[in-house]
Amino acid sequence: MMIHLEQLELDGGSGTDIHDVTGRVAAAVEASGVREGLVTVHAPGSTAGVTTIEYEPGVLADLRAALERLAPEGIAYAHDARWGDGNGYAHVRAALLGPSLSLPVVEGRPLLGAWQQVVVVDFDNRPRRRRVLIQVLGDQARP
Amino acid sequence: MMIHLEQLELDGGSGTDIHDVTGRVAAAVEASGVREGLVTVHAPGSTAGVTTIEYEPGVLADLRAALERLAPEGIAYAHDARWGDGNGYAHVRAALLGPSLSLPVVEGRPLLGAWQQVVVVDFDNRPRRRRVLIQVLGDQARP
Amino acid sequence: MMIHLEQLELDGGSGTDIHDVTGRVAAAVEASGVREGLVTVHAPGSTAGVTTIEYEPGVLADLRAALERLAPEGIAYAHDARWGDGNGYAHVRAALLGPSLSLPVVEGRPLLGAWQQVVVVDFDNRPRRRRVLIQVLGDQARP
Repeated sequence: MMIHLEQLELDGGSGTDIHDVTGRVAAAVEASGVREGLVTVHAPGSTAGVTTIEYEPGVLADLRAALERLAPEGIAYAHDARWGDGNGYAHVRAALLGPSLSLPVVEGRPLLGAWQQVVVVDFDNRPRRRRVLIQVLGDQARP
Repeated sequence: MMIHLEQLELDGGSGTDIHDVTGRVAAAVEASGVREGLVTVHAPGSTAGVTTIEYEPGVLADLRAALERLAPEGIAYAHDARWGDGNGYAHVRAALLGPSLSLPVVEGRPLLGAWQQVVVVDFDNRPRRRRVLIQVLGDQARP
Repeated sequence: MMIHLEQLELDGGSGTDIHDVTGRVAAAVEASGVREGLVTVHAPGSTAGVTTIEYEPGVLADLRAALERLAPEGIAYAHDARWGDGNGYAHVRAALLGPSLSLPVVEGRPLLGAWQQVVVVDFDNRPRRRRVLIQVLGDQARP
């Protein structure tokens, strides 16, 4: 079994930044040489999540609006009352979205639909550089 | 390590169809011969998701009602304004639910509770045949 | 490839109990000897979920409040009308949160942020002992 790890750095912090990392995921799978296996994308930290979406501005705005209904920025959060961070909404959104995503690798590519992109959603409201890990695990082609 | 891949096709498109694929997942694990490992169920595309639920009509209706609170069908979506698909709600629901699920395989079976089923939720509102992938990864029994 | 499985038992049932299992996950990874791989935490059953969060009382209260907006305890559920369990809200929350989480193992440790804990959220309203599985899959250090 082969295990290959890559690290990205993403700049964000304006509140619910949505980064398309599909190209980076595909490149990591290709670099690994894995033909059949599993690729896991993980954003360490408690204010970001990973999912897939069609990366076009309309849907991205629609996703932000749904998250605003679920965990509005403007309401009171116990986290903010205790710690003064102002990012209680970000913690809640991240816990609900989930911090990682695993997809099958088939014939050397992450399995995705034609209009489906892998995104890291950075909910935080402070400028920050965020680390994202891409791990590819599986079998390489046999010679 | 053994990697085994199966593909299902599901017909749907009436809006938030919930398909029980538990039997197909268990059959794929059995067919793989994997005794200990991980099974991943993935619905490629940006308008479907995968999770688990007790597959009885009451809970399924309750889940649909919660999704309707989260991303109602009847409100305006920027995606629909741009593309005219009328399925903006489906994209948002799918991104929030997540496109894949990985479960441990223990003693040749996917690990599930007694009243827990694996479901593919197809949110789309157009009739379509949807492809679902089941990947089993792990060790076969030693002779 | 090495596959290592551990089982926890958690007591809960007061409604949306949030258990920090980070230490148990790290211990399972260490016990496995796996240096590079994937760890999956899975709560079998249809009324619990797994995610990550900063485990401090403020954020936990904020998460509970968001779940209450999404699937309130006090509204009518079709599941309860059929089965009288009174835990329809728990089924819906669990389906939306998801029953399992997979994280990369890097240098013998589950990859997490400094303020990020792995939590099992038990939504059920009846006292119960809940089983949680931790599976570590990967390569051990080479001698």
